[in-house]
Amino acid sequence: MTAVADRPTLGSPASALVCRNCGAQFPLGAQHACFECFGPLEIGYDADALARVTRADIEAGPHSLWRYAGLLPVGQNPATRVDSGTGMTPLIRADRLADELGFTAPVWVKDDSANPTHSFKDRVVSVAITAARELGFSRIACASTGNLGNSVAAHAARIGMPSIVFVPSDLEAPKIVQSAIYGGTLVGIEGSYDDVNRLCSELSETDEFESTGFVNVNVRPYYAEGSKTLGFEVAEQLGWRLPAQYVAPMASGSMLTKINKAFKELVAAGLVPSSQWSVFGAQSAGCAPIATAFASGADVVVPVKPTGIAKSLNIGNPADGPYALDAVRGSGGAMAAVGDEEIREGIRLLARTTGVFAETAGGVTVAVLKKLAASGELDTSRETVVFNTGDGLKTIDAVSGGARPTAVIPPTIKGMRAAGLL
Amino acid sequence: MTAVADRPTLGSPASALVCRNCGAQFPLGAQHACFECFGPLEIGYDADALARVTRADIEAGPHSLWRYAGLLPVGQNPATRVDSGTGMTPLIRADRLADELGFTAPVWVKDDSANPTHSFKDRVVSVAITAARELGFSRIACASTGNLGNSVAAHAARIGMPSIVFVPSDLEAPKIVQSAIYGGTLVGIEGSYDDVNRLCSELSETDEFESTGFVNVNVRPYYAEGSKTLGFEVAEQLGWRLPAQYVAPMASGSMLTKINKAFKELVAAGLVPSSQWSVFGAQSAGCAPIATAFASGADVVVPVKPTGIAKSLNIGNPADGPYALDAVRGSGGAMAAVGDEEIREGIRLLARTTGVFAETAGGVTVAVLKKLAASGELDTSRETVVFNTGDGLKTIDAVSGGARPTAVIPPTIKGMRAAGLL
Repeated sequence: MTAVADRPTLGSPASALVCRNCGAQFPLGAQHACFECFGPLEIGYDADALARVTRADIEAGPHSLWRYAGLLPVGQNPATRVDSGTGMTPLIRADRLADELGFTAPVWVKDDSANPTHSFKDRVVSVAITAARELGFSRIACASTGNLGNSVAAHAARIGMPSIVFVPSDLEAPKIVQSAIYGGTLVGIEGSYDDVNRLCSELSETDEFESTGFVNVNVRPYYAEGSKTLGFEVAEQLGWRLPAQYVAPMASGSMLTKINKAFKELVAAGLVPSSQWSVFGAQSAGCAPIATAFASGADVVVPVKPTGIAKSLNIGNPADGPYALDAVRGSGGAMAAVGDEEIREGIRLLARTTGVFAETAGGVTVAVLKKLAASGELDTSRETVVFNTGDGLKTIDAVSGGARPTAVIPPTIKGMRAAGLL
Repeated sequence: MTAVADRPTLGSPASALVCRNCGAQFPLGAQHACFECFGPLEIGYDADALARVTRADIEAGPHSLWRYAGLLPVGQNPATRVDSGTGMTPLIRADRLADELGFTAPVWVKDDSANPTHSFKDRVVSVAITAARELGFSRIACASTGNLGNSVAAHAARIGMPSIVFVPSDLEAPKIVQSAIYGGTLVGIEGSYDDVNRLCSELSETDEFESTGFVNVNVRPYYAEGSKTLGFEVAEQLGWRLPAQYVAPMASGSMLTKINKAFKELVAAGLVPSSQWSVFGAQSAGCAPIATAFASGADVVVPVKPTGIAKSLNIGNPADGPYALDAVRGSGGAMAAVGDEEIREGIRLLARTTGVFAETAGGVTVAVLKKLAASGELDTSRETVVFNTGDGLKTIDAVSGGARPTAVIPPTIKGMRAAGLL
């Protein structure tokens, strides 16, 4: 495997892999765990390089996440990018949602169901596959709760790279079909996501998988940076400033922490004015290890066996749980968990007030927004951004019982009258 | 009802409603049939106004279909627009698809599954609801084969306008659920789309529906113009030039003809160089009244009773059939129809070569591309654009039988070996 550091850097602002536990630094390459303490690695940047990025540079870039290449570890040379048109998804001003929840400040919905495979995973996959190619991998793989598999398989098909996607075999049917349709290899695992993830970690160490980049295992430091673009876009779409509060769903906890990292990097690079913001984390009651730790004041996240309809969030042993706790506590935010019926109501609330049809994870986030606004833990007088990370069509069965025709009638005026519609 | 002509025009280039049969002209307003001959009306423009639109004006506009407001009948004042972020969907260079079909020229996929409710209908609805508000309607309605209903209900929810959507009650489940989730009224009709359409025409004449704008009945002249933006975008995304060939699906036949109209308007306005292009129309064998007329050399489209999996194209009595025949014949193009198994294979072919997961209508279009390329009716040495109008998640059952996991195994290395994956 060729290390990125061995190649022309093409102006990458990334400088090293940095251990999130002990701070040890390593050269950029296909490494994801610290050689010193086994802690997880993330990308470290040259602060001077980040500070050279200007708003004008970004605004002159493509209408996709690659406009932020100057703030990402790879893809500075457009020819190296895997570009599916991901990113620059709508930031929707949700006045009717705000009114219904008693907000006096604006509420915005960042709608990542608008990405090509209809989830925020297209962001992390765009960055991860670009990195994987630069790192010399010839096949791409992932452990997925569904959306990631959809995105990996689609991007691999787009560029003609073999793919192998691992998912729990009991996923929602649309997510299974969408991962399979692109013609790559799809492996259903009889077990939980945590079982799938463990198997992928083991496989990544085998000789047979030496040339395979698991986007969220051995390419994870690059992959995770893709989520920062959610934060970058919100700031740019608000006119280069940060919101006072944001609410994000938590599965591994990575996305929530990376949006926070993005906001910090934007301030450090002088791209937005410095401001205070609070971070709020959403989980489903069926899988709430991070929210449970938050509620009890614990630093350690105790793994759980997931249940409930929000399958895309069903990670019982969340890798970034402690970092999510830090981000939320350090910002004066909060976390909450909501049950399946609240999740369904969250989907309906978002749909009827904004026209955005979210998957169950989006229902979790909106329901937590509602819950924390009602409890006062979230301040309804402060501008708030809610992240919808996926599409309602992928979890259609969760709401189909409560989303039926008002009436079914014959094609006649008489039929309309009999149904009370005329 | 206030006529548009009674209001400040806000710089609209539209000048009249023009009968497509007899050429009679009428003031802009909520009229859709000719008072002289009962023919369908379309929007006529002031040629000078269109000629004043520049590439620079368009490029300086929003990254949505509203960048083309200078070429549309409504929405010149941004405050009047219903803007869901529709449009500027990816134009994907499909080299792997081209190779597989023996093309020596580039093939492009215009992917409208990237629109907010994941079909091209968001275009016509954006324009129609904007027009309906300007025309003074207080409720919005439609007759739909599914995608249109999804889009009308979502846009109505976004702006807080009541909606009533009429669909055949036997539609695909995801399309039913998506129309219902936004909280408007959804009426399932026991009958075909043609029955639904007839009922909506009748209802639009009743007192109770006087304030209701049926986007594809009494607002149809405005509605149909939205499809032109598909053509505008392709031209801009190709660097302000037209492709030599395009392939579009046909339900009513409207979209295919409006792309052709868009190309003509771009040439007339001096926005692209004049060039020759050929138009190709795609139908499913289960509902091929236009393609049948084309094959037999007839000018009259004989209605059929639709069958088959491409339900979004199942319009047995297509309003714009004769105009689609004119566009195709006048350009030296062709039409073809494909069966359900070819449609499924078309979906898989597109997915595995481009990463685009299309609904059955997209499968029809790709299968017809393949068929006409093989027969030589479509020239594989000429640059070709294929329109994907909808999303595979909405017709998931059509392909679920052929899109299953490669293997289902226990979460172990041993399980991988037993399945031949290691």
